Amino acid sequence: KMLKRVLCTVLFMGALPSLAEASQGHISVVLLGATGDLAKKYLWQGLFQLYMDQVSSGHSFTFHGAALTALEPGQRLMFDVLKKLACPPDESPDRCAVLKDQFLKLSQYHQLKTAENYTVLNREIETLLHQEGLKEAGRIFYFSVPPFAYTEIARHINSSCRPPPGAWLRVVLEKPFGHDLESAQQLAAELKSFFREEEMYRVDHYLGKQAVAHILPFRDQNRQFLDPIWNRHHVERVEIVLKETVDAKGRTSFYEQYGVIRDVLQNHLTEALMFLTMELPANVSRAEEVLQCKLQAFWSLRGLEKNSAVLGQYQAYASQVREELQKAQDYVSTTPTFAGVLIHSDSLRWEGVPFLLTSGKALDERVGYVRVLFKNRAYCTQSETLRDAGHSQCKAKQIIFYIGHGALNTPAVLVSRNLFRPVMPEGSWREAVGQSDLHIFGQPLSDYYVYSPVKERDAYSVLISNIYHARKDFFITTENLLASWGFWTPLLESISHQPPRLYPGGVENQHLLDFEMVSGEVAFTLAEPVELLKPNRPMPSDYKTIQSKFRQSPLVSAWSEELVSQLASDIEKTASRTVAHSGQFHLALSGGSTPVVLFQRLARHHYAFPWKHTHIWLVDERCVPLTDAESNFFSLHNHLLQSVRVPYFNIHPMPVHLNRRLCVEEDGGTELYAKEIMALVANASFDLVLLGVGTDGHTASLFPQSETGLEGAQSVVLTESPVKPHQRMSLSLPLINKARQVFVLVLGNGKHDITTLLSRVGHEPRKWPISGVSPSSGQLVWYVDYEALLG
Amino acid sequence: KMLKRVLCTVLFMGALPSLAEASQGHISVVLLGATGDLAKKYLWQGLFQLYMDQVSSGHSFTFHGAALTALEPGQRLMFDVLKKLACPPDESPDRCAVLKDQFLKLSQYHQLKTAENYTVLNREIETLLHQEGLKEAGRIFYFSVPPFAYTEIARHINSSCRPPPGAWLRVVLEKPFGHDLESAQQLAAELKSFFREEEMYRVDHYLGKQAVAHILPFRDQNRQFLDPIWNRHHVERVEIVLKETVDAKGRTSFYEQYGVIRDVLQNHLTEALMFLTMELPANVSRAEEVLQCKLQAFWSLRGLEKNSAVLGQYQAYASQVREELQKAQDYVSTTPTFAGVLIHSDSLRWEGVPFLLTSGKALDERVGYVRVLFKNRAYCTQSETLRDAGHSQCKAKQIIFYIGHGALNTPAVLVSRNLFRPVMPEGSWREAVGQSDLHIFGQPLSDYYVYSPVKERDAYSVLISNIYHARKDFFITTENLLASWGFWTPLLESISHQPPRLYPGGVENQHLLDFEMVSGEVAFTLAEPVELLKPNRPMPSDYKTIQSKFRQSPLVSAWSEELVSQLASDIEKTASRTVAHSGQFHLALSGGSTPVVLFQRLARHHYAFPWKHTHIWLVDERCVPLTDAESNFFSLHNHLLQSVRVPYFNIHPMPVHLNRRLCVEEDGGTELYAKEIMALVANASFDLVLLGVGTDGHTASLFPQSETGLEGAQSVVLTESPVKPHQRMSLSLPLINKARQVFVLVLGNGKHDITTLLSRVGHEPRKWPISGVSPSSGQLVWYVDYEALLG
Repeated sequence: KMLKRVLCTVLFMGALPSLAEASQGHISVVLLGATGDLAKKYLWQGLFQLYMDQVSSGHSFTFHGAALTALEPGQRLMFDVLKKLACPPDESPDRCAVLKDQFLKLSQYHQLKTAENYTVLNREIETLLHQEGLKEAGRIFYFSVPPFAYTEIARHINSSCRPPPGAWLRVVLEKPFGHDLESAQQLAAELKSFFREEEMYRVDHYLGKQAVAHILPFRDQNRQFLDPIWNRHHVERVEIVLKETVDAKGRTSFYEQYGVIRDVLQNHLTEALMFLTMELPANVSRAEEVLQCKLQAFWSLRGLEKNSAVLGQYQAYASQVREELQKAQDYVSTTPTFAGVLIHSDSLRWEGVPFLLTSGKALDERVGYVRVLFKNRAYCTQSETLRDAGHSQCKAKQIIFYIGHGALNTPAVLVSRNLFRPVMPEGSWREAVGQSDLHIFGQPLSDYYVYSPVKERDAYSVLISNIYHARKDFFITTENLLASWGFWTPLLESISHQPPRLYPGGVENQHLLDFEMVSGEVAFTLAEPVELLKPNRPMPSDYKTIQSKFRQSPLVSAWSEELVSQLASDIEKTASRTVAHSGQFHLALSGGSTPVVLFQRLARHHYAFPWKHTHIWLVDERCVPLTDAESNFFSLHNHLLQSVRVPYFNIHPMPVHLNRRLCVEEDGGTELYAKEIMALVANASFDLVLLGVGTDGHTASLFPQSETGLEGAQSVVLTESPVKPHQRMSLSLPLINKARQVFVLVLGNGKHDITTLLSRVGHEPRKWPISGVSPSSGQLVWYVDYEALLG
Repeated sequence: KMLKRVLCTVLFMGALPSLAEASQGHISVVLLGATGDLAKKYLWQGLFQLYMDQVSSGHSFTFHGAALTALEPGQRLMFDVLKKLACPPDESPDRCAVLKDQFLKLSQYHQLKTAENYTVLNREIETLLHQEGLKEAGRIFYFSVPPFAYTEIARHINSSCRPPPGAWLRVVLEKPFGHDLESAQQLAAELKSFFREEEMYRVDHYLGKQAVAHILPFRDQNRQFLDPIWNRHHVERVEIVLKETVDAKGRTSFYEQYGVIRDVLQNHLTEALMFLTMELPANVSRAEEVLQCKLQAFWSLRGLEKNSAVLGQYQAYASQVREELQKAQDYVSTTPTFAGVLIHSDSLRWEGVPFLLTSGKALDERVGYVRVLFKNRAYCTQSETLRDAGHSQCKAKQIIFYIGHGALNTPAVLVSRNLFRPVMPEGSWREAVGQSDLHIFGQPLSDYYVYSPVKERDAYSVLISNIYHARKDFFITTENLLASWGFWTPLLESISHQPPRLYPGGVENQHLLDFEMVSGEVAFTLAEPVELLKPNRPMPSDYKTIQSKFRQSPLVSAWSEELVSQLASDIEKTASRTVAHSGQFHLALSGGSTPVVLFQRLARHHYAFPWKHTHIWLVDERCVPLTDAESNFFSLHNHLLQSVRVPYFNIHPMPVHLNRRLCVEEDGGTELYAKEIMALVANASFDLVLLGVGTDGHTASLFPQSETGLEGAQSVVLTESPVKPHQRMSLSLPLINKARQVFVLVLGNGKHDITTLLSRVGHEPRKWPISGVSPSSGQLVWYVDYEALLG
């Protein structure tokens, strides 16, 4: 009734020509949580902006504020908010005053609590439309309510407030959208039972920030400059940063459950990352194409591991939590308030480029930016003094999407002058001038082309306008949301009990939160300050490598890391000596998981290894195709061969896959491999064989009680493993015992029992095949780590 | 007689106890060219320094200056030089005065012109030794003479002046050692007929510069810090620079024949490069090991090409040459006085790291340095203002071996403080202090640990001392010399007619000589200034690639180099597009010599090629083992596969060698390859097949009148070639015609006749198999160079 009265008044006054002429139809906007903080601060202003912008669009509007509060106090609260709506500086005050008056008249408060309330609301909208002879264009329901309220509201809207066929429904959802993959999936499934995908607009307000929203248009409009350089060959690194000075005080009940990664990285910074890394669709204004490319960018991300992140917590956080959440004095929170995360994309375009996402509370400044730093490929012949005078190619080259605050205190796009003068849309961005004394990202501001928005617009205004325009690419689709949670959840799980580094907050943090990248991982650059150190526990370097005997052969023992590095050095020494002596080195390597760390060590630390003269043989293989993830060769290839330069001809995978069949006796794979060994390896005596030991005492693929390979004339045999895949190919014990050197690597306390047993038993290869390893004229060395040796 | 008199006087005075007590034996030093510029400026001073250092070593010495000048004027000239010998500041003036007096008495002038002169000299030395009852330790002959005089002097020394058995001979040679590989080989061969390798000490005085000489010791003494970072994972780039302000005026008769690359880069800068890149021997003081590692470093260098260098010539040079060499006014010199060269090492340690060697005359400053810049892997969380206050990991990290002059004006070793505090030998290097306002390599000097020599020593003093100590690692061995010329000669040849960019000289050069790296090549960053352009003469790039039709299919034609580079680009484009679309790219390549240039181009210039997703197939193969030099696969491996990262599983050589037999029908190699194609290539339709054409019209290994492969259902066939090796395996014409794209590459005027013929004939595959190439639904493109097309 009230709506009708308001509307009648309005129509009677003739103040709303657009409503009468609404050839495009009527739009009803329902703001749920109309008197909450977000609504007060941004949403009503955004709706008013929408009204001002679209009053002549041919659509007519009504705005419905809703909350749980009863009608009268709710009305009062809401109209208190509306009265304070501001006129934007670029609007004429007269027009704005008229429009604000109209907007107030078109706005109405509803108590929405019961199913009945929703039915009534629906009826009122229908009645109005019928009475005014208006066609219905659509309805927008903006959920500015806590997540626990979502389901019920969604059910009511779906059952009672859907517009008639031909008109659209748009529901706008605010984060959080779950706190991990599982909860997000659950929430998504629930929502899916009420709304179709195209009806849902999940807000990430970062996508409404002008600098972020301009990343894709910028890439599109500057294709001519960016096409050759927007890739791993030219980009050195990318930083995506949101630093805050405030802390979580007063919000710990929320924050303690979420932490900085869920609060900022999983959503805001990840979305910016996608805009940077996604392939550019032919038409960036087609939401479908943009969303598809974005999803693909998600799929290219390399999985995160525990060491992909450094975590911090400002020191006052714990006491704030204890106070606000009434926790005991010994309550310890591991919620991070700072995170630096290193992300890699495995796409062809970005492989190897580090993307650093950083955010934190209680830092030294408030600022947000996306910084793309290009590799410096120039050499400047003249001396530095002269060099700095000009427009030098030796200065840093970067493109920065400056989100806001910080030194510039405005959204901006910066492009180094030695890169190119960017194409910017004239109406909305203009070149900024002045402030020449400012230094930013290591250079004076005058080194950049600087553009800032003609009109600074609040993110929510931008987003509300995009809801109206159905620009779904400004919102988070379900697939997008789940892809993001799928990416972040493993990290969140692996760090959930990891204590973050404590930091004092503000400028006092100094270098405490600086971090650096080392082979795909990150670590703080400063060691943990002494006063924060854990109570002493024995560290590997406190022990010395033990050199002694095991089963009458030399034993090398140490903590596993040190042991592997010793083994790698010993292999390299053997290789160099052998190549110097005979021109080539025949190395037979075992499969399984134990040698992987050794392979990685060899790949990354042994640059002088004579790979060019090394032949690589397999000790054993599983009967699967070589490209199967279970293949020993596949693992060897991934962890070692692809990183070093062994000539193709020197690589000798076992022929388990012949004639496109696996280990079929008639294909003669074992004979073939034996012949190849005879042909290339002098006396079939390998220079070095690397073995492991199974918990059952197996070695190579020679299992206890094996009918083949433990004795006899055959060099290469087919065997059966008790575990899958059962079929195996293996060098035989007699062949192994012809080697000049045999190294056995045993790692981990899972091997403690077998190690202990082996230290006692004699030569019983039928029971424990490893006990049969005893080179006839070569040397055997055991490499056993402390865990395996001492348990 | 004079020698005897001098010596007697000395002995009588008792001033030379070392000579009387010489238990280590006597050393005779003969300086050839004793009155020349180098001798005056450095060598006599160096010999005097040697004497001061070694007077108590147990060796006795005599010094023989020699030249073509007659005895009396020669004596006068030489003693004028000796009288001016300076006492080093760290020597007590009294001791120095005594020693100088002794040194003068031990020094004698000889005219050495005829064979007789040498015999006399030899006899005098023998007589002295005999009379004084001295054992002979050895003789040093220092060649400070022009290269044309070398052979004769060497012959005389060898025939008349060799010391008796048990004493050593050391001949010291000064550059130039040839001007290209051939002349250096010739000179080396000549010298070899007179001296054994261990007798020759070739001087590169840069190896005596204190900062250069300290590179290896520094690497050795700081292994603990450098081991993890002295590699491609951590080093961003290396600059080796010698800038001069002087020009070549007065020396153009020498310079015009040599130019900056022969004068500075081939020797001085290359030697510094070797010290940086070589693997460190276990013992750096063992000359043998050092020299061996250095040679290996040479062998790892990637070959230079024309575009590996940028060249300049200061504007006044041409007129200086015309004046000094009395050339005509239209004489044009292409001798470079400036060069910037990009060098890559293919060693595992350095792969991908750019080494920039730069030198020039008439530049803005005089300075020499070796700068190792590390990758910046840190992210600093605090704002820039705070960051610069401390000891930040975000500042540049570098190690600089400062050779001399420039802002520091002293040899020095600089290490960024955020790297590590280096270990320096206490007696010879000390930490420098002060000059805190100086900026160097982009940072204040206070950001570095700075060390300078306790005693600044002239390079020749250092080297003369090393000759005495037989430290052959401070000199250039024949192998080393030839390796260096072997490396530089192809570049020198390819640029010999290339006009260098003209530059005004001094500070006016501004950015004119700045250059940048783009995919393994270098180019000036500024376009050629219009006013300096050469008079027009047709250059290859003046021709446009001809695009037209050949046998109804698109034809691309150009000079061969440009054509191959176009083809390589087109293949990369096809590859990237295909991988973007279907995730993989199936490329079938032909054997033979024609595609070798293409393979090299792809290996060296196409870093963005999606090799990881490319499958490599063979179009045809000779029935020889894969490691045979005649194997197509072997050639493909050597020229392409070993330089790129194609996964092992994606490489598909033809199975011509099965069961250790070659192309035996029963082994079913053709069926096996066909099956592999079916299994991996969708519809057995290759994404791209590269073919060639034989002079008889054959393509792949499909020869005229072949009974197999020209038609029928077989995909892979065995064929017979009219030339050896006769047996071949080949893809069939029907399979080739299923490809999505077929590129045919035809190069050289040897192919002109068949090209002309093919332009006229129709589809007659029995006569000319290539005429049967006609993809059923794919595209055929001809790449024919001008020589093949136009004859």
